[in-house]
Amino acid sequence: MAIADLPVALDAMGGDRAPDEIIAGALDAVAAGLPVVLVGPVDGSLGDVGGLEILPASEVITMKEDPAKAVRTKKDSSLLRAAEAVRDGRASAMVSAGNTGAAMASALFRMGRLPGVARPCIATPLPVPGGSPTVMVDAGANADCQSDWLVQFAQMGAAFYRERYGVLRPKVALLSIGEESSKGNVLVKETYERLAGGEGAGGPERLEGLEGLEGPERLAVGYEFIGNVEGRDLLTGEADVVVTDGFTGNVALKTLEGALKTFMTLLGGVMSASDEAKAASEVLLPGLLEAAAPLDPEATGGAMLLGVDGVCIISHGSSSRRAIVNAIRAGHDLAARGIVSKLAEAVRPPS
Amino acid sequence: MAIADLPVALDAMGGDRAPDEIIAGALDAVAAGLPVVLVGPVDGSLGDVGGLEILPASEVITMKEDPAKAVRTKKDSSLLRAAEAVRDGRASAMVSAGNTGAAMASALFRMGRLPGVARPCIATPLPVPGGSPTVMVDAGANADCQSDWLVQFAQMGAAFYRERYGVLRPKVALLSIGEESSKGNVLVKETYERLAGGEGAGGPERLEGLEGLEGPERLAVGYEFIGNVEGRDLLTGEADVVVTDGFTGNVALKTLEGALKTFMTLLGGVMSASDEAKAASEVLLPGLLEAAAPLDPEATGGAMLLGVDGVCIISHGSSSRRAIVNAIRAGHDLAARGIVSKLAEAVRPPS
Repeated sequence: MAIADLPVALDAMGGDRAPDEIIAGALDAVAAGLPVVLVGPVDGSLGDVGGLEILPASEVITMKEDPAKAVRTKKDSSLLRAAEAVRDGRASAMVSAGNTGAAMASALFRMGRLPGVARPCIATPLPVPGGSPTVMVDAGANADCQSDWLVQFAQMGAAFYRERYGVLRPKVALLSIGEESSKGNVLVKETYERLAGGEGAGGPERLEGLEGLEGPERLAVGYEFIGNVEGRDLLTGEADVVVTDGFTGNVALKTLEGALKTFMTLLGGVMSASDEAKAASEVLLPGLLEAAAPLDPEATGGAMLLGVDGVCIISHGSSSRRAIVNAIRAGHDLAARGIVSKLAEAVRPPS
Repeated sequence: MAIADLPVALDAMGGDRAPDEIIAGALDAVAAGLPVVLVGPVDGSLGDVGGLEILPASEVITMKEDPAKAVRTKKDSSLLRAAEAVRDGRASAMVSAGNTGAAMASALFRMGRLPGVARPCIATPLPVPGGSPTVMVDAGANADCQSDWLVQFAQMGAAFYRERYGVLRPKVALLSIGEESSKGNVLVKETYERLAGGEGAGGPERLEGLEGLEGPERLAVGYEFIGNVEGRDLLTGEADVVVTDGFTGNVALKTLEGALKTFMTLLGGVMSASDEAKAASEVLLPGLLEAAAPLDPEATGGAMLLGVDGVCIISHGSSSRRAIVNAIRAGHDLAARGIVSKLAEAVRPPS
C-alpha cells in the first residue's frame, strides 16, 4: 500500500480535551479525505466513534506522568501502540496531543533514531503574520545541547522546511542575543562558526531553474545560513528556520504564548468594558479575527519530532478538533512526501 | 552631602534619540525635583541644555561599538566619566540609554565589583498588568553562567525587589521548561536544588509585624523560593523575581518585545483599515491606552546593574524623555535607599 493510503494513527487519549474533541477532529479529517485510525480502548469508553477503526490500547499516559517511566511501564498505552503502528507499516504517521515527553519517548523507543542522528529534536512552527511560519528547532526535546547536535538540527530543520512549506533553499539562523558572530553563549558561538563555515549547508549560488528538482539533487540545494537572529525576530519571518537548544527554544515558545495570552486578555477586557465599547468592538471584530488568525497555534498543524524513523506529530495539549485535523493533515502529507528519508539524507555525512 | 542630594549623572550621548530627547528628560526630571548633571561634550554641541550643569566628556561610545574595546580606548567617553562621577561621590547614580555592554563595562571597571560578588547581573523589570513588575535577573550580562552565580542573582534580585517595590519577602523563581524540579537544563536543576535547600533564602516563617523592620533585620527576612516558572508566567506576576542565565533572559526579554510589537502592529492595522474601523477605534482608544500603559517599557524606569559598587541604571536604547525621567527617578531613589550596601549585605557569606 502506498504510504499516502495508510491511515494516520491518532492517539485518542492524548490532550486536555480527549477523547471527545480528538474523535471529533478524526471524523472531520476523514470527511476531508484523510485516512485515520484511532488508537485507544476498545471497551466502548471512547463513546460513539462514527465507525472509525480503533487500534486497541488499554492504557493511558497522562499529561503529568514522568515520560521515561510511563513509557517503560505502560506497554499497552495508546502512545506506544501508535508508534508501533508506524514502525510496522500499519500507519503513515502518529499524531498525539498528549504528554509531549512521552510521545517523543514512544517514537524514539519504537521507531528508533535515524542513522547518524545524535538527538531527535522538535520542530515547532511559529506563526508569521502575512508569511510562512518560522520553524524553531529544537523547541524542547533536549535541554542541554552540543554544537554537533545543533548543526544537525539545522540540517533537519531545513529539510523539514523545504518539504513542509515548499521553500527550495530555506534561510537558517541561530537564536542569539545579538546579530554579530561574537554575541551569544559558548554553544551558539561554536555553532555559528560551524554553520558559517558551510557545514551541512552547501548548495548552488543561484536557484533559478532549480524549482523542479526532485530526489538527492533537491536536497543538495541545502540552506542559506543567515547568521544570528534575536528573540524579537521570531514572529517577523526574518528566518525560515531558527536553530536553538531545547531549553532556550522552549522558554521562547512559552514566552510567546504568554505574551499573546496577556495581550488578548487585556484587549478582551477593553472591548467588553461598557456597552459603548462592545458596540465599537463589533465593528472591529471581523478584522481582528482575520488579523489574529495567523497567530492561532491551532492553524499550524503541530510540531514534528525530527530524527526518528517515522513521522510523529505532536499537537498542543489544548488542541481543538480543528487543531487535530491540521495535525493529521500535516502528518499525512509529510509522510506522503517521504519526509523521513529526506531527513535521513540531510544528516548523512558527506561521502 | 547626603546621597539623595547628589545629582544623577546622565549620559547625554547615549541612546538612539540622544542628545535632544535625553536633555529633554533631564529638564523634566529637574522640574520634578530630581537633581541631575549631564555628562557630555562642553563644546556647545549639546545645544540648549537649559542651564543644566555638564560634566565634561569629549568622546562617545556608539551603540554598535565593541564594549570592551571601546571602554579600553575611549577614556574620556561620557559613559566612563559618568561611572567615575559615581565612584568619586559626585553623583548618586549613573543613567544611560546607550550601549548596554559599554555601560556595564564602564560601571564594572570604574566602580568595581561588590565584595564577594562573582558576576554583576542585569535586573530588568517586566510589566505585569494590574500588579508590580516581575524582575528578571540576569537579563543579559552573562551569557554563560554557573549555579553559584545564579544563587547570587537570586539574593541580589530579592534585595533589589524589596527596596524597589517595597515587598518585604519577595517570591523568587527559576525560569525553566516545566514546574517540576526535574525539568530544565543542568544549570537550572543544580540551581533548583541549592535554592530549594534554602541557600541564601532564610527568613522567618511569618511576616506579621515585620513590615517596619530596617537595617540588617529587614534584609534577613530573605526571600521565598517558589520553584520553577515557565516563559508563559513572565507577565502574570507569578514570581516577583525570576532568575535565569543572561542568555536565556535576554532571549526571553526580546521575545516579549517582539511579540508585543507584532500584536500592536496587527491591532493598528485593523483599527485603521476603514473609516468605520477608525470611528470604532476612537471609542476604544482611551481604554486601550490605559490597558497598554503597564506594558510600556518606558514606565518601568530601566534596568539596574546589580553587583557593582554604585548605582548604574540602563535605559532602553529607544528611550523617550519620559523613560529618561523614570530612569533618573529610579536611580535617585535606589541610591537614597542605600541599595548598594543592601546588595552587598545580601551576598555576604553567613558568618
